[in-house]
Amino acid sequence: MTEPLHALLAPRSIAILGSSADFRKVSGRPLKHLLDKGYAGKIYPVNPRYETIGELRCYPNVGAIESEVDLAIIVLPASEVLNAVRELGAKGVPAAIIFSSGFSEMGDAGRQLEREIVASARASGVRLCGPNCLGLINAFDKVLATFSQYADADTPSGPVGFVTQSGAFGTAIAALARRRGLGLGYFVNTGNEADLNFAEIMAEVIRDPRIKIGAGYIEGLKNGDDFVALADAAMELGKPLVVTKVGRLGAGARAAASHTGSLAGDDVVFDGVARQHGVIRARNEEHMLDIVEVLAHCDLPQGAGVGLLTQSGGAGVLMADRAQELGLSVPVLQPDTQAALQKVIPGFGAVGNPVDVTGQFVADPNLLLESVKLMLADPNVDVGIVWFQLMEAHVDKLVKVLVEIRAQVSKPFVVCWVAAPEAGVKALRENGIAVLRGAEPAVDAVAALVQYAQVRRNWLARRDERKAISVPALDVPHAQVVSTMEGSRLLTQLGVPHARSLLATSADEAAKAARTLGYPVVLKIESPDILHKTEAGGVILKLTDDETVKQAFATIIARARQYNANARIEGVIVQAMAGGDTEFVIGLQNDPVFGVVLMAGLGGVLIEVLRDVAFRKVPLTPSEAEDMLNDLHGKAVLAGVRGQPPRDRAALTQMICAVSRLGAALGPRLATLDLNPIMVGEKGAMAVDWLLMLEDAGGAAQHAPKAASG
Amino acid sequence: MTEPLHALLAPRSIAILGSSADFRKVSGRPLKHLLDKGYAGKIYPVNPRYETIGELRCYPNVGAIESEVDLAIIVLPASEVLNAVRELGAKGVPAAIIFSSGFSEMGDAGRQLEREIVASARASGVRLCGPNCLGLINAFDKVLATFSQYADADTPSGPVGFVTQSGAFGTAIAALARRRGLGLGYFVNTGNEADLNFAEIMAEVIRDPRIKIGAGYIEGLKNGDDFVALADAAMELGKPLVVTKVGRLGAGARAAASHTGSLAGDDVVFDGVARQHGVIRARNEEHMLDIVEVLAHCDLPQGAGVGLLTQSGGAGVLMADRAQELGLSVPVLQPDTQAALQKVIPGFGAVGNPVDVTGQFVADPNLLLESVKLMLADPNVDVGIVWFQLMEAHVDKLVKVLVEIRAQVSKPFVVCWVAAPEAGVKALRENGIAVLRGAEPAVDAVAALVQYAQVRRNWLARRDERKAISVPALDVPHAQVVSTMEGSRLLTQLGVPHARSLLATSADEAAKAARTLGYPVVLKIESPDILHKTEAGGVILKLTDDETVKQAFATIIARARQYNANARIEGVIVQAMAGGDTEFVIGLQNDPVFGVVLMAGLGGVLIEVLRDVAFRKVPLTPSEAEDMLNDLHGKAVLAGVRGQPPRDRAALTQMICAVSRLGAALGPRLATLDLNPIMVGEKGAMAVDWLLMLEDAGGAAQHAPKAASG
Repeated sequence: MTEPLHALLAPRSIAILGSSADFRKVSGRPLKHLLDKGYAGKIYPVNPRYETIGELRCYPNVGAIESEVDLAIIVLPASEVLNAVRELGAKGVPAAIIFSSGFSEMGDAGRQLEREIVASARASGVRLCGPNCLGLINAFDKVLATFSQYADADTPSGPVGFVTQSGAFGTAIAALARRRGLGLGYFVNTGNEADLNFAEIMAEVIRDPRIKIGAGYIEGLKNGDDFVALADAAMELGKPLVVTKVGRLGAGARAAASHTGSLAGDDVVFDGVARQHGVIRARNEEHMLDIVEVLAHCDLPQGAGVGLLTQSGGAGVLMADRAQELGLSVPVLQPDTQAALQKVIPGFGAVGNPVDVTGQFVADPNLLLESVKLMLADPNVDVGIVWFQLMEAHVDKLVKVLVEIRAQVSKPFVVCWVAAPEAGVKALRENGIAVLRGAEPAVDAVAALVQYAQVRRNWLARRDERKAISVPALDVPHAQVVSTMEGSRLLTQLGVPHARSLLATSADEAAKAARTLGYPVVLKIESPDILHKTEAGGVILKLTDDETVKQAFATIIARARQYNANARIEGVIVQAMAGGDTEFVIGLQNDPVFGVVLMAGLGGVLIEVLRDVAFRKVPLTPSEAEDMLNDLHGKAVLAGVRGQPPRDRAALTQMICAVSRLGAALGPRLATLDLNPIMVGEKGAMAVDWLLMLEDAGGAAQHAPKAASG
Repeated sequence: MTEPLHALLAPRSIAILGSSADFRKVSGRPLKHLLDKGYAGKIYPVNPRYETIGELRCYPNVGAIESEVDLAIIVLPASEVLNAVRELGAKGVPAAIIFSSGFSEMGDAGRQLEREIVASARASGVRLCGPNCLGLINAFDKVLATFSQYADADTPSGPVGFVTQSGAFGTAIAALARRRGLGLGYFVNTGNEADLNFAEIMAEVIRDPRIKIGAGYIEGLKNGDDFVALADAAMELGKPLVVTKVGRLGAGARAAASHTGSLAGDDVVFDGVARQHGVIRARNEEHMLDIVEVLAHCDLPQGAGVGLLTQSGGAGVLMADRAQELGLSVPVLQPDTQAALQKVIPGFGAVGNPVDVTGQFVADPNLLLESVKLMLADPNVDVGIVWFQLMEAHVDKLVKVLVEIRAQVSKPFVVCWVAAPEAGVKALRENGIAVLRGAEPAVDAVAALVQYAQVRRNWLARRDERKAISVPALDVPHAQVVSTMEGSRLLTQLGVPHARSLLATSADEAAKAARTLGYPVVLKIESPDILHKTEAGGVILKLTDDETVKQAFATIIARARQYNANARIEGVIVQAMAGGDTEFVIGLQNDPVFGVVLMAGLGGVLIEVLRDVAFRKVPLTPSEAEDMLNDLHGKAVLAGVRGQPPRDRAALTQMICAVSRLGAALGPRLATLDLNPIMVGEKGAMAVDWLLMLEDAGGAAQHAPKAASG
């Protein structure tokens, strides 16, 4: 039997269950497309109503087919699908695509039926794509197992593998790719993903050596581990993954939930994990295709220096602005580059970067050739953007000179051609030159290229870092709310710096603890039933002698009783005052898609008002922790504001790594951990408050509501 | 003589100085276009080398033309332009367009020549467009006074007036507009703007009743007052202005400076003034045209509720996300709307908003008709977006039903058609329906429509507010650095709450002042030579009795002498401690383009690290001050973070208005004013530090470097 995913994507034989002789119908279109486009394998229509369809014998059922079948396309009413899958199992068919709808997208009854189908398929070794999907195309091998409109015209093969969770949107994206001359080697719509999910199918797609880039449209992931495995495999293969994922905000999530059976997951977590694993996230469909086109035609640049060459100063400004917003560098060209440019460019042009060659290049194409070459030869330029407009009358001349440039330079460049004549765009693309339609989209796509190149360089340099992470075995408490002292024990075991703390059960013990720790100290109520300590009046700061400590002990106990008469009061925590003046927050939570993830952000207004946080999957390498800090909009605070010295970033990255190992060690037992605040100074960082909540030892991890600390 | 701007844009007769018989040349193309496109006025080629050009008599010089000339096009070498302008003055020609380059864009010599030309023109009453420009088109009257490539094909007239500072980029934008079927009634390239500037020309363009929308491309404004007058005129006429301006950041500004002779100005100031005066700012050329297209085809919506209708759940999510990011509301449809939709939409669709009609509408166009009507009829929906894709086979059917919808509904809606067949897009646009090519661009353009509608409603409601502003006459000090007590006097006169302060010149006076003000107090060094008081150790806080005040006085004087032995020390300011715990900053500065502008922002990390500030031109109305607060990303701080009560926004808006009146009263005398910090509490707001710097009474206002206070 063929390996099921290979059978799905590159079948040697296809059975169509419910095949119709009417080629206009959904049930007739796969056969039509397979015949029209010249599929070379065997095709077996299955439908008891026909003896033959066209020149093909039509079978009453799958069992009647005498040869092996790699792939079955199921175009039957929902009620007949379960039985069909059973027949496939009996026949030993390794893979099936279910077009039919009427399953989990239709509520509980559909969901139940879908589950039964998956159970039957798993029992007999059949892997499923769908249900409720448009099917797939393998354009290399003319496998047209789809009824998507996209197949109604040419479906040229090419280095892009496209997998989409949405049929309608995915069809549009595929059509847009075709208009750009971007060949889709694969087009797959995964539908309800009852069995095979987006990541599993994309992983198989990029395994094909004819595929160089994976492009994906995601509404919600079913399995975070599969996605991470996909991302890592893509990085290993050196094949970029570009995805657009909808559901960034609340109302979006509402619509996503109504559309598919999947949980939208927490988008900010997806974003963090994608960054962590080098997946390029595009804002929308055009942005994705811009990036794919640039990746398809350009080598990876060696750095972030962009050379901008235009015939309009304004376009240069627009691109320079955008480049800087996206963290690219627009280096002033070196004096000798400028001097050389000055010899070829008219006096009213500009040679600094952006380079303005003026409209003169129309009369003198050599001017364009020479100036692009000079700009790209500048040692600080890693990638170029050449901007011009319209030029109905000069298409051939322009194409010729750009193709010449492409042949003569080694650094990557793209063309931004505004209001371009179609013939010019087509000719450039056929010659392997990426063409963008606007200045900002051009810079956006080049930025993605530069960032991917950087991510890949980092990945190559850091690939051993991950192996060095050691996750300890822990003696995990059984309580749901872990006590301060138990939490302290775990933090100590993992090497997470935190304020020294002692539990006191009497005023005298408190004073003794304070002397042990050294004044000044803080007193905090300790009770598994009082999580909002400040709200309960259970925190008193800056105590400087035995007498005030004893008074504070009594005050805190009294307030706690008043706040919650039934609270189990275990005593009062006496804690040394922490140094450092910049607040930071690190948290852990159990994400339903990705498992334990770590959140980091600067405290105060940045986290409370601007939600300026970064997420990553645990455990983290030091470089990944550094990346997290760089993701924060307010990161300049760590560099020192208004002449202050920088805060201790190294201490923070170490702390992030240590907490991430704690998260990995706790695994499904973790509900949430908040280290809030962490005080960061010029030297060192120290958690002042920690609240660890666990899941029952027996139960599965659920996404628990985040509890506030302090 | 015709009014010069009217003569420029709608001339009854045109002379072409330097006209060539070779219609391929820059000097031949205006005549070719005028003849080809049927200009109805008189045309006078002027060139001593010809007797005739085609069938037209050619004149040796302007003086030889026997009739009146409204407009002269100058296509002469730079060195001949001055003389030509003199001849125009002698002949009484009211307006000229100078194509020629070789002026301020070429350095000092060119700048000098340009100044002489302007001086000559002004002396004889000739108004100039250019030099170094592509000229203009008035498509209504077939005035083709240009050599832009845009004129090589059809130049259909329409309700959009387009004025551009860039020739090349502007030509591309015009070509893009034409492809969308957007008629440009005017196309004007202003070039170096030696005389007439962008705002003056645009103001004349929108005065034409055939123009409904002004669209502009800006690299740098020459005159802020003209721009504000333009914006106000556009608002008065109810004609939206949509502009894209380059030069957001530093490197951009560098390129802009190398391209034009104009100062790029401070982009964030431009942004604030544009918001203040209801000018819609687009990110780039496509964004601008999207907005223009929507404005051209849609009535203004009554509110911010967007109804989203798709055939793809994912597209709905993408649009809902974007709508919320842009501050639109995506209201859940009312129960009766949902119930009605449920009757027409298949069970696997969605009726909440986004509405998912599923692919079923292809088979049943009535489904689309009914559901769009139902969605738009919902009382919470003000504007709709209808999303679908591809549909090569169903273009006519779709166009028919959408045109029908358009005829039957009163609320505005746009179509987002991804991977659309060109014929469909063209047909919809011809029927007055705006078509966008992607989900995000569609939401972006609708957001601009909604925001403009809101701005216009506000403007109508608030138009009397501005009249109520009274700017007092001030007794302005002569010093460059205004003393604390003089500053306090001005703040008091304008009604700006600030900490009560007294100047003490001895320790005993300081103690007496402290008793007068009431303890606790703050002491601060007072010297025109010590602006960074904290740095000099010149501030001591929280003094609670006479003795410590006396000590502090001595300490501060001693430190000041040590810090700067030559400083003129006027004494020590004794100040009451302010209440309030949220820091705010208000500043004034003299912008080279817009004059006195006010800056406001939240103190601390928001202003220091994230540069979260808003700018407006002074004086401000209370509503404008409110708008400023709403522009701040961190505005939630004012609403109260983590359960804190809200801060006193009303006190802040009053303070902003009062400070803005101070700015207006100081006018060109102002260099900078910093009120930093202002402490805002639950009730009241009070400036704690103020530093006012003035220009010399005699000198013109220059943009002085911002001095830090406190």
